[in-house]
Amino acid sequence: MQFSQAEYDARLHATKTRMHERGIDLLLVTDPANMNYLTGYDGWSFYVPQLVLVHLEAAQPIWIGRKMDARAAEVTTYLTRENIIGYPDDYVQSLIKHPFDYVADRIIAWGWGEQVIGLEMDSYYFTATSYFSLHHQLPNARFQDAALLVNWVRAVKSEAEIDLMRRAARILEKCMTTGIERVQEGVRQCDAAADIIHAQISGTPEYGGDYTSIVPMLPSGEGTSTPHLTWSDQPFNRGEATILELAGCHQRYHCPQARTVFLGQPPQKLSDAASWVLEGMDAALDAVKPGALCEDVEYAWRECVAKYGLTKDSRIGYSTGCNYPPDWGEHTMSLRPGDRTELQENMCFHMILGIWMDDWGLEISETFRVTDKGAECLADVPRPLVVKD
Amino acid sequence: MQFSQAEYDARLHATKTRMHERGIDLLLVTDPANMNYLTGYDGWSFYVPQLVLVHLEAAQPIWIGRKMDARAAEVTTYLTRENIIGYPDDYVQSLIKHPFDYVADRIIAWGWGEQVIGLEMDSYYFTATSYFSLHHQLPNARFQDAALLVNWVRAVKSEAEIDLMRRAARILEKCMTTGIERVQEGVRQCDAAADIIHAQISGTPEYGGDYTSIVPMLPSGEGTSTPHLTWSDQPFNRGEATILELAGCHQRYHCPQARTVFLGQPPQKLSDAASWVLEGMDAALDAVKPGALCEDVEYAWRECVAKYGLTKDSRIGYSTGCNYPPDWGEHTMSLRPGDRTELQENMCFHMILGIWMDDWGLEISETFRVTDKGAECLADVPRPLVVKD
Repeated sequence: MQFSQAEYDARLHATKTRMHERGIDLLLVTDPANMNYLTGYDGWSFYVPQLVLVHLEAAQPIWIGRKMDARAAEVTTYLTRENIIGYPDDYVQSLIKHPFDYVADRIIAWGWGEQVIGLEMDSYYFTATSYFSLHHQLPNARFQDAALLVNWVRAVKSEAEIDLMRRAARILEKCMTTGIERVQEGVRQCDAAADIIHAQISGTPEYGGDYTSIVPMLPSGEGTSTPHLTWSDQPFNRGEATILELAGCHQRYHCPQARTVFLGQPPQKLSDAASWVLEGMDAALDAVKPGALCEDVEYAWRECVAKYGLTKDSRIGYSTGCNYPPDWGEHTMSLRPGDRTELQENMCFHMILGIWMDDWGLEISETFRVTDKGAECLADVPRPLVVKD
Repeated sequence: MQFSQAEYDARLHATKTRMHERGIDLLLVTDPANMNYLTGYDGWSFYVPQLVLVHLEAAQPIWIGRKMDARAAEVTTYLTRENIIGYPDDYVQSLIKHPFDYVADRIIAWGWGEQVIGLEMDSYYFTATSYFSLHHQLPNARFQDAALLVNWVRAVKSEAEIDLMRRAARILEKCMTTGIERVQEGVRQCDAAADIIHAQISGTPEYGGDYTSIVPMLPSGEGTSTPHLTWSDQPFNRGEATILELAGCHQRYHCPQARTVFLGQPPQKLSDAASWVLEGMDAALDAVKPGALCEDVEYAWRECVAKYGLTKDSRIGYSTGCNYPPDWGEHTMSLRPGDRTELQENMCFHMILGIWMDDWGLEISETFRVTDKGAECLADVPRPLVVKD
């Protein structure tokens, strides 16, 4: 168990409190990070339907997944055996029946088929077909969109979670240092990526690294004009920039960070943009304090870089922590205009200042914790544009 | 471009033929592998809504995704600039509007709002909310479930695709050899995983490796009783088995394989099961030929191992090829009772014979191509239980 039973109990209690406030009797939790958060469940089994059911009146959640994964639930969760239920394999990728048909049958058997059921309607692994399976099988249930209900509980981290993110930060420092070192003229991108991921997974002598929810991004050359290209087997070239957007991960908790490297003498526009971004980042980090709004942080950035004519039309950050592929973001708070969420101590954000132009770009980012005094960046890697001439 | 324009044209034509047969005017393709297959689009951007629209009467598909990813579509696809459309960033993880609202607006603007629209209803990245966004914004459209329509087009591979899978097989051989070598008493699981992934990504001197759709699975000791546990930072122990389920990946095409290693003298039940599984695999592979049914292959396995009292209640294989996280399976054909799909030349399957008991297990698997003569296993790694005493 990663966390104490008391911590899992507190998470469940906070979830039930939100359910109660919204009149939800039964919550179906399909986001793998939320499943992990509430029960400890961990495994690469989210490619088949699986979920955790939280009922207001049940002492423990119930895990339902594929039968072959039920042992993984026994190994990784605190749930008692009767609260771990595997569905038969012929439900998997069947053309005639769906795992949520099975889930609906169980819900009826437990007498919950006419209650208010909360669904994570916009979760990656809750498909439209999953919804219609429940809708057809449970004609007397009242469904409510409970998207992000548990994600919001996750927004403020415990000390134990912060400890895991600090471990992830140590791993991130190691793999960012490796990445910066390996971006060299003539080195194939895939060989640099291999060394970066090796550092991510081997971790430190004291604790290992886990797979990250997003693989290393290392767009290079013209590719820096767009953020989500992965590596190729072409070499890095002199006269080109490479963006490294990486994370360390420990027990599913992430610390992401981005840096930009230039091989040769960078063009003035890139050096200028990098220095403006650093100044804007300082301004934005200075605006972080409990009680400030998410949009206040973005405004500090916006106002600072406006004097250089620099604008950015995408958000500058989002909440991060425990997660599974395909995203290490929590989909709750964003640092952007209109997000009036108040910052609280122990919220954690990835502030990512990415500038993507026609045929060039750069990214510099930090993962920070909100403290009573301001922003604490979790990892310690020099921020400026790395110039290797 | 990974493939010739003629090959992309043939894929689009095959897709439109199926659309026409089913009366679909417009198909919304949200599965990242299907998007790649039809256009070449590649990027780790599937954590936000994105899609490819195929209209029966349009010469090219249309890509719609997040604005910052539109450049990635220009770089990786053959689509002309007017068929690449980015939605503004304030649609991303917004609490007040959804990217599919934007998609619906475009569909209306193009005059397709009252047509028959096919949706991949059970695709990971097409959530229930995505469906309801379209449903509300397009009240005059007629929706049809087009789940797996493109996946079925992908079932028979071209020679160019087989070439990529052969490259993936070369990479797999390298990383499986690394993995078998690194499972040693006292080595931390995370250090072995780091070396395996390093081999996956660095690839060969001629071509690099890509990230696999599933990370290496290496359950060890009691963990072998369940298939989807990833590594920990604990060491491998003498007297324990470790399962290696790995893949090589090249340009998104996979070649998965599983092997089992035992440190010390294996218990009789494990040695016995391994030899029965090998015999059953030979029987199943012998049953592969064009015209045989998927269930025939499973039956050959079932009948062979029944004489040892061995039963397996999960499918023994599935179609594989081009894919993205979280799965390298194609969700079409399964080798199991009731799947009466006829095998055709150049279909490719991962036949995975996994046995998971109370506190032990083993896996031995092969990726094979259907040829006119039978099954051709793509990778060449000795199959028997690896005993390191």
